[in-house]
Amino acid sequence: MSQPVGTLRQQVTGDLYAEVQTFYAQQMRRVDALDIEGFADTFTDDGEVVHAGGNRQSGRTEMVAGMRANPPRYRDIAVRHWFGHLIIEPDAMDGNTLRVSYYTLVTQTDRDGKVAFQPTFTVDDVLVRVDGRLLTRSRVIHRDTPVAPPAG
Amino acid sequence: MSQPVGTLRQQVTGDLYAEVQTFYAQQMRRVDALDIEGFADTFTDDGEVVHAGGNRQSGRTEMVAGMRANPPRYRDIAVRHWFGHLIIEPDAMDGNTLRVSYYTLVTQTDRDGKVAFQPTFTVDDVLVRVDGRLLTRSRVIHRDTPVAPPAG
Amino acid sequence: MSQPVGTLRQQVTGDLYAEVQTFYAQQMRRVDALDIEGFADTFTDDGEVVHAGGNRQSGRTEMVAGMRANPPRYRDIAVRHWFGHLIIEPDAMDGNTLRVSYYTLVTQTDRDGKVAFQPTFTVDDVLVRVDGRLLTRSRVIHRDTPVAPPAG
Repeated sequence: MSQPVGTLRQQVTGDLYAEVQTFYAQQMRRVDALDIEGFADTFTDDGEVVHAGGNRQSGRTEMVAGMRANPPRYRDIAVRHWFGHLIIEPDAMDGNTLRVSYYTLVTQTDRDGKVAFQPTFTVDDVLVRVDGRLLTRSRVIHRDTPVAPPAG
Repeated sequence: MSQPVGTLRQQVTGDLYAEVQTFYAQQMRRVDALDIEGFADTFTDDGEVVHAGGNRQSGRTEMVAGMRANPPRYRDIAVRHWFGHLIIEPDAMDGNTLRVSYYTLVTQTDRDGKVAFQPTFTVDDVLVRVDGRLLTRSRVIHRDTPVAPPAG
Repeated sequence: MSQPVGTLRQQVTGDLYAEVQTFYAQQMRRVDALDIEGFADTFTDDGEVVHAGGNRQSGRTEMVAGMRANPPRYRDIAVRHWFGHLIIEPDAMDGNTLRVSYYTLVTQTDRDGKVAFQPTFTVDDVLVRVDGRLLTRSRVIHRDTPVAPPAG
């Protein structure tokens, strides 16, 4: 089950690491600012998001409609998405396609400065580089759940 | 309003990304250790900090005096600053000047191990490289506040 | 006491920064998944961990036995380790040996989605690159404790 650690099928360069981190920094600034159209623009036209509950949004139009209909967790709350432990795997056949996995922690700060937390998630993305610009083609969000302790 | 994502005016190299992250790692170790002079040394002589409440400190001397006068949030508390989603933009005309934006989350752990959180902030820095060494020339700290949900 | 900030004895390249971050991303996925053998495989055979309480585990075998005996904090809890502010210092004499220091925050999410936090820690690692693959040779975990405020 365990693959060698510290070796990916293709080593991630520093430039690629910085490019991907910067992409997410920009994408999350948009979602945290409730710039729904701007956020949708960071996806391909046919971009797809599968939420932790199983709800699936396909394409920018559906994504924007869904976010407009359901922004309740943002009501009078400053939301920030924090990422951790990115693993970036360029497609062996196509350097413009990347699989990226990361942890997310979401803070919700109210007007009094009190911070609340959503459950943590692990996310699997496929990014594509189109005309030199990264876009998210698919995103699958997994809610982190307890694992069984190993058999003694 | 939306700029293209995944493209900065000038692409951030992996080396620059590592340099800036390392700079902040060292700067935050100093502030979290209450090494006030060491922290002030990471700013230019005329370095300026504008706090979220609007309070402005200009120059290392004022910065040190201000931090000596007001370290209450550190009393018997281990403070740690966490950064997220750096966006690094080298000045188009001067590669030794960088605009950097990032999220911060501040944890306060008491002697019993209980963790409390300050409200989240977004910070805008200007860094300059002097004799091969990064320094903060200005810092503007914004407290994160709720944004209005988009018009349905 | 203060060393120059923004200059390490040896500058960290973007490639090295990405390599180390990726190593930790893979190592933490394993510990968070309770893949104890897989986690132990990210250490050298004689790898050593000194826990914050002073408990020391030497060698993979002892590490696995210790983790099997004491996984209580994982019981019915999804644990995630978050890292911050890595400082990477390649050994001046041996590019395959790295000293790495970082902050850690540990979240524990229960089945209802409620997030709890362990106290924060600062960790000092020695990593070695063996056959092109990073491994942890030693890890010393320090619980973050309050520092005395500077003398007025």
